Amino acid sequence: MNDALRITGVTITPVAFRDPALLNAVGVHEPYALRAIVEIDTDQGITGLGETYADEGHLHRLRQAAEAVTGMDVHALGAMYGRLADMLNGQTGTDGHGLTGVITSGGTVDRVFSPFEVACLDIQGKAAGRSVSDLLGGAVRDRVPFSAYLFYKWRGHPGAEDDLWEEALTPDQIVAQARRMVDTYGFSAIKLKGGVFPPDQEIEAIRALRAAFPGLPLRLDPNAAWSVETAIRVGRELDGVLEYLEDPTPGLQDMARVARDVPMPLATNMCVVAFEHLAPAVEHGSVRIVLSDHHYWGGLHRSKLLAGICDTFGMGLSMHSNSHLGISLAAMVHLAAVTPNLTYACDTHWAWKTEDVIESGTLAFENGAVRPPQGPGLGVELDRDALARLHEQYLQCGIRNRDDTGYMQLIDPSWAKRIPRW
Amino acid sequence: MNDALRITGVTITPVAFRDPALLNAVGVHEPYALRAIVEIDTDQGITGLGETYADEGHLHRLRQAAEAVTGMDVHALGAMYGRLADMLNGQTGTDGHGLTGVITSGGTVDRVFSPFEVACLDIQGKAAGRSVSDLLGGAVRDRVPFSAYLFYKWRGHPGAEDDLWEEALTPDQIVAQARRMVDTYGFSAIKLKGGVFPPDQEIEAIRALRAAFPGLPLRLDPNAAWSVETAIRVGRELDGVLEYLEDPTPGLQDMARVARDVPMPLATNMCVVAFEHLAPAVEHGSVRIVLSDHHYWGGLHRSKLLAGICDTFGMGLSMHSNSHLGISLAAMVHLAAVTPNLTYACDTHWAWKTEDVIESGTLAFENGAVRPPQGPGLGVELDRDALARLHEQYLQCGIRNRDDTGYMQLIDPSWAKRIPRW
Repeated sequence: MNDALRITGVTITPVAFRDPALLNAVGVHEPYALRAIVEIDTDQGITGLGETYADEGHLHRLRQAAEAVTGMDVHALGAMYGRLADMLNGQTGTDGHGLTGVITSGGTVDRVFSPFEVACLDIQGKAAGRSVSDLLGGAVRDRVPFSAYLFYKWRGHPGAEDDLWEEALTPDQIVAQARRMVDTYGFSAIKLKGGVFPPDQEIEAIRALRAAFPGLPLRLDPNAAWSVETAIRVGRELDGVLEYLEDPTPGLQDMARVARDVPMPLATNMCVVAFEHLAPAVEHGSVRIVLSDHHYWGGLHRSKLLAGICDTFGMGLSMHSNSHLGISLAAMVHLAAVTPNLTYACDTHWAWKTEDVIESGTLAFENGAVRPPQGPGLGVELDRDALARLHEQYLQCGIRNRDDTGYMQLIDPSWAKRIPRW
Repeated sequence: MNDALRITGVTITPVAFRDPALLNAVGVHEPYALRAIVEIDTDQGITGLGETYADEGHLHRLRQAAEAVTGMDVHALGAMYGRLADMLNGQTGTDGHGLTGVITSGGTVDRVFSPFEVACLDIQGKAAGRSVSDLLGGAVRDRVPFSAYLFYKWRGHPGAEDDLWEEALTPDQIVAQARRMVDTYGFSAIKLKGGVFPPDQEIEAIRALRAAFPGLPLRLDPNAAWSVETAIRVGRELDGVLEYLEDPTPGLQDMARVARDVPMPLATNMCVVAFEHLAPAVEHGSVRIVLSDHHYWGGLHRSKLLAGICDTFGMGLSMHSNSHLGISLAAMVHLAAVTPNLTYACDTHWAWKTEDVIESGTLAFENGAVRPPQGPGLGVELDRDALARLHEQYLQCGIRNRDDTGYMQLIDPSWAKRIPRW
């Protein structure tokens, strides 16, 4: 008994998948989104999957980490975390796309560790014949609700075919996007990515959504595009309309100033993005809701820790999403299923995605929710042909770091990134 | 795969084991200490062990809980916690012995849940062929250091044979006790249970220990027997002598007052004993070290949460002990082994104990430390003859609730419990 289950090798495969022309406060999504697929092999022939970012610096750190974890037992997660922290030795990653707050040295360890932890849990589950949910304390819900994630968008990338989703630049077009998304997936909450147009236009879009979907909770996320004064004004105007207002302005101190003067709770995935941000956030009263994300909160166990901290310190919990594939969705669903205080519908970019690396069939939206896969481990399998195709796409597409601002400036040289913008 | 591993029954056996005449701020240990042994049976024939308090109210709640969890999967720990919380519905246990702070309704759920969680982890580990350490993220240390836990004591219980340990009422006798305990077990830190004699006598004992053991960290725990003024005076007098001062005075507010005026960190297992105490403790700066104890922090997963909270909010972590048997020691060692920030030697009453319910051989002190058992699950087995003998002792001894004060008053009717006493 208790035989080691050792890592014999790690394969890291960067992939690119088509992404529509989605607008945000720092520019526009490029034609391809990047992810890295982490496959861990063991001496017992059991393999595990993880998924993470694929920007070049992160890829480099992942490859260093792959060497560092080889030979370790897949249960030695605490020791693995320590080894990666030693290896990274205070390195701090840059965040090219500017949408996920300040990357600290601790946060960098969490980002690098995360896909290895998820893959090791996948292996642990397969070895024990249990789902990742079971390893994390067991599901407390059998379906995980998600929100419709609306974006202002162009009809397509310049010079390319139209996206599958229509242009959305006006309140009516946003309502039409929401209608199609809710009809298709059954989502029970709606989030609008804002920070794109002057605040009054986005207020108008939110009011149009409220009129069209009187029963659904609404959220607005301008990605810190507003000054404190603007944030307070918008917050007050949307009193009684928003479930929460996400990252209206940058920084813990200014978020606290806004929090004191607006009626709805503030949420964040920008000013609280690492464990070291939690104590000052609690001290200042910066936010009432933290958006968790296992990709930068250090995997599933540490995301459960974040959940416990939120519960203990009276903060709510929701879940953030970047553009992602099915391995990440499986991990997100297992995590959400075992987290009692995750009471908000989670974010996902799933609806915007037309390609994947996993075999289809295990993850399905029904009435806006996904059931945790029941198979052992994560419960999803790689589609190797799809993986090869998306890796080839990565090699061909030329994108190596997410750069929404640079891409926007290629299209509109006069466009400038300004935070806050209004 | 993922077949349920269902609880088919739970056996709760109260036991009593001989306990020496150890003095504390609220009286003296009775001749027997009580524990409840929780055995969980499953439909796959795998059984698991837990250990907890055995006061009558707690026993009653354990038996209710045993019915509530029967039929559940041993992996469904989150659901089990929710079910016990619903069952207890705000009930609050009393704490007869007055040494572990305020029992809240949340803390009562944690106390009742704990032995069931430990027993379920024991079963999960046996089913997967992994140790409980592995289930909790893997050991980050292969030996768990403990401290010598010194008590003022009589030579024996009145009217009974002498204890195996000599009388200890003077500084010299305390030093002799420490010498014997350190020589026997190899402990690398020393804690004195204080609050028994006027503070100047206990200061003298600490100074004698410092002279006799110049290299060992020292701690003093008067169990909230002092006023704020006394606590500040003693703390200042012991500047540079104590590693930490434990619960000098009652309550979060008064602990914060003392914390501001003494040079050493304050530790607690009295004013922070449930998750709801953490936010106010952080806000007031009441303590710099929390003593965890899986028996009242809701089991091993939730004790890991406590550890993560301490790490995140800049507090240190140590481990508390009541009189306990080997099932608890195994659980404590697994927990301590997987907790990176548990950097203080743990407390244990182990040295005071002459009887147990587990088969000997798996838990051994070497240089003051215990190695986590390597077998699957907790790695300890019940000795059924010993269990029967200690249960018979429970039936015969007449003690049904721990009552150090009542027992002291039987011996000395003039003795009165006063907190603070000095």
